[in-house]
Amino acid sequence: MQAPTLYRQLAEHYLSAIRHGTLATGDRMPSVRKLMQLHEVSLSTALQMCRYLEAEGWLEARPRSGYFVRQPRRIRLAPALEPKPATVIDPAQFVGIHERVSSIIAQGQRPVKINLARATGAPDLYPHKQLRQLASSLLRQYPLLLTKAISPGGNRDLKSALAKRALDVGISTSADEVIVTNGCIEALNLALRAVAHAGDVIAVESPTFYGLLQVLESLGMKALEIPTSPSTGISLEALELAMQTYDNIKAVVVVPHLQNPLGSIMPDSHKQRLVTLCEAKNIPLIEDDSYSALANGDKIPTAAKHWDQTGNVIYCASLHKILAPGLRLGWMLGGRWQARISMFKYAQTRYNEELSQLIAATFLQSSSYDRHLRKLRTTLTQQREKMAEGIATYFPEGTRLTMPDGGVSVWVEMPPQVSSRAVFDAALRQDILVSPGLLYSNSNRFDHFLRLNCGTHYSHELEEALGVLGRIVLDLARIKKVASA
Amino acid sequence: MQAPTLYRQLAEHYLSAIRHGTLATGDRMPSVRKLMQLHEVSLSTALQMCRYLEAEGWLEARPRSGYFVRQPRRIRLAPALEPKPATVIDPAQFVGIHERVSSIIAQGQRPVKINLARATGAPDLYPHKQLRQLASSLLRQYPLLLTKAISPGGNRDLKSALAKRALDVGISTSADEVIVTNGCIEALNLALRAVAHAGDVIAVESPTFYGLLQVLESLGMKALEIPTSPSTGISLEALELAMQTYDNIKAVVVVPHLQNPLGSIMPDSHKQRLVTLCEAKNIPLIEDDSYSALANGDKIPTAAKHWDQTGNVIYCASLHKILAPGLRLGWMLGGRWQARISMFKYAQTRYNEELSQLIAATFLQSSSYDRHLRKLRTTLTQQREKMAEGIATYFPEGTRLTMPDGGVSVWVEMPPQVSSRAVFDAALRQDILVSPGLLYSNSNRFDHFLRLNCGTHYSHELEEALGVLGRIVLDLARIKKVASA
Repeated sequence: MQAPTLYRQLAEHYLSAIRHGTLATGDRMPSVRKLMQLHEVSLSTALQMCRYLEAEGWLEARPRSGYFVRQPRRIRLAPALEPKPATVIDPAQFVGIHERVSSIIAQGQRPVKINLARATGAPDLYPHKQLRQLASSLLRQYPLLLTKAISPGGNRDLKSALAKRALDVGISTSADEVIVTNGCIEALNLALRAVAHAGDVIAVESPTFYGLLQVLESLGMKALEIPTSPSTGISLEALELAMQTYDNIKAVVVVPHLQNPLGSIMPDSHKQRLVTLCEAKNIPLIEDDSYSALANGDKIPTAAKHWDQTGNVIYCASLHKILAPGLRLGWMLGGRWQARISMFKYAQTRYNEELSQLIAATFLQSSSYDRHLRKLRTTLTQQREKMAEGIATYFPEGTRLTMPDGGVSVWVEMPPQVSSRAVFDAALRQDILVSPGLLYSNSNRFDHFLRLNCGTHYSHELEEALGVLGRIVLDLARIKKVASA
Repeated sequence: MQAPTLYRQLAEHYLSAIRHGTLATGDRMPSVRKLMQLHEVSLSTALQMCRYLEAEGWLEARPRSGYFVRQPRRIRLAPALEPKPATVIDPAQFVGIHERVSSIIAQGQRPVKINLARATGAPDLYPHKQLRQLASSLLRQYPLLLTKAISPGGNRDLKSALAKRALDVGISTSADEVIVTNGCIEALNLALRAVAHAGDVIAVESPTFYGLLQVLESLGMKALEIPTSPSTGISLEALELAMQTYDNIKAVVVVPHLQNPLGSIMPDSHKQRLVTLCEAKNIPLIEDDSYSALANGDKIPTAAKHWDQTGNVIYCASLHKILAPGLRLGWMLGGRWQARISMFKYAQTRYNEELSQLIAATFLQSSSYDRHLRKLRTTLTQQREKMAEGIATYFPEGTRLTMPDGGVSVWVEMPPQVSSRAVFDAALRQDILVSPGLLYSNSNRFDHFLRLNCGTHYSHELEEALGVLGRIVLDLARIKKVASA
């Protein structure tokens, strides 16, 4: 990994001073000339640092006076509430989540001006030019690639590249063990089919990615929703309680890093305890690790699978959020169920097409991939900050937001009387698409939440859209208050 | 469709005379000069016709004497025996077919000199150059194709192209109803999951494609093997009997055209009766129509789905046997189960990648596709004939073969005492890969059969390999005879 650039190191230094109160709101920053002397840096580095902190909302430039410390508006947003671990839980096979999701998705399929419902970055955040060139050059190199039968077992190059990259998250595995799938969604299907049957209960985070609820519904399994913290992920107390209450839990599914929609990241100690707990109870743990490369910082978080001694953890991940949303490439390590999962994969969809695998393999093996990830993380961080500023500016009092430490979206809690479905409908009439909270649970527990995408360049148009959204939320909050008064 | 070329029309004329005995073995053909006068054709056409019939094994050239009628050697091969409709049937959930298939496939994964186990044509039988050029030009046309999120619902162009092509097999549908899948194997999975559950009994052809048996095993369903004729496909008498005997059949799966491995083609009257029968018994019919475009003649056979009035037929097909083995593109029409299948597809693997869909769509919409298919059919016909000649030449007495009316393989019945597993092992030791009959049934009913691929250019090496195979079969037939004597 490359070290952070000089101006970023300097920025961290001053940010820390601001956070600790050494530099208070309204304080003047040292002048650029002073910064150059103090830190023995060039004019360009000093300026870059100030502009960076300005863009992040921590400094404001006053003409002819220099830079002054300010508090970003988003500081005013209260963090989301922590869930109560003892919340009453009921395993639900919500026959209808697919219909609910489909109806929302179907409505959102017409072209809109501003799409905040996406779960990926905008297409130009990914290395489209390099991937396109790779595609053409690979087709020249392997002229029969599109017309020869796909080699059994999946593409060896991609499997090697993924096994190597797995070292970054603390997993030591071999290319042979990597099963390439059609996206993480196929991996989750295979994992669940390997360890459970129709009618079985599966513990999931709450809120959770609606795609998982749809998978459970399609397999006839029941979701047991476990309270999950916006900062530290699934509540281990609640999970343990659930395991004591229900003796028929057949698997636990978690997204330890940048959970969708919360953005929470489980501390290492929690992941380790979770692995131990599941093992002790003999309940398979399915880890969905599709987002970890988008976490802030230069060290990718360690996978729960790292602490797995017995093969009780099935590791699932994908490349489309981090490398290329147009490639449906997921992958998994099957743990104790490796043979069964391999069989299911072969019987379900055979092996993936080779071209996309070769494109991905070649890119993953190069240092371009590391450069891409660093750039993507920086861009997303800036965009998340700006989105949070916009929300703090335009959304009404009572709005809550825990800033996630990475990822492509924020999870916004609106005043409790506001229904996300109503916001969705009103926003769509104004050509804005949002992802309503009611999709993220079998209950209506999160109906006053929105998941807003931060993967798009923060433009004037986007700011306007946030203004429109803010007014919609404000209006709905007032109407409801009046109605209930 | 283009009319057959002049020399082919002429060839058909003389072939008919030979078949009817008007021209007997040993008879001299009219001279080339005579042919030119008789039919008012050019020298080149007359010569082309004679050379074509020579290549097909019906004429032999004698120096300075002209062409003489001969019988191809394959005429000496007796056709495969018809099954007995009343054969005792037992629904079997063969837990282990996957293991059996995997062990065979795993052994065959090392590079071999001659691969006769393939289920597709050789890569150069497909339009690799055109597809490659399309890929590069589409990537230029849509520069963000690899990095933008896949559009919901699947690629519209491909769905339109497939709906249009469906007219050729007698199906009138709309682009909206086409569900694009990861190969026909995913389509079969989705179809079976939509109509049946673990433990249910599914009627299948016997012998049948081992992939289907693996799908059934992986879904926990039981295969009920119905006797199937090498010429007319599934026995309707046997199927009806089975429906009377077992009241828990939840679906019937058939490959009406160029059944794998038999190569049989169901007559239209049979397909119609099958559709009516299934409808009357309220049992869903799943039609796998992946090979029909490879049937001889200029008219693609009519799908069973054509006679479906009530949505009781689920139609599944794919493009990799006919257009490009490297593209994992299947598709289906869900009939009454359309909504359920769409949900399962979404929850299982989302939508397919766009690039391959666009490549296929663009090619299907052009007349290049028709030209490709005509050429592919002609090439395969010649290669099947040559393979049959080779088998007639080198395999021992008692070998049986029904020439299929199209497709990429032949199904060879060896003397009953010969085990296909033993042939497989012995052949592999000599670097030849075959597909043993024991894979095509849960029973050992077809252990003395081989499926041999005809998709490779018939070379001297290939002829030698058939010689080796013939000796292996002969040796095994003798040893077994002695042992049992």
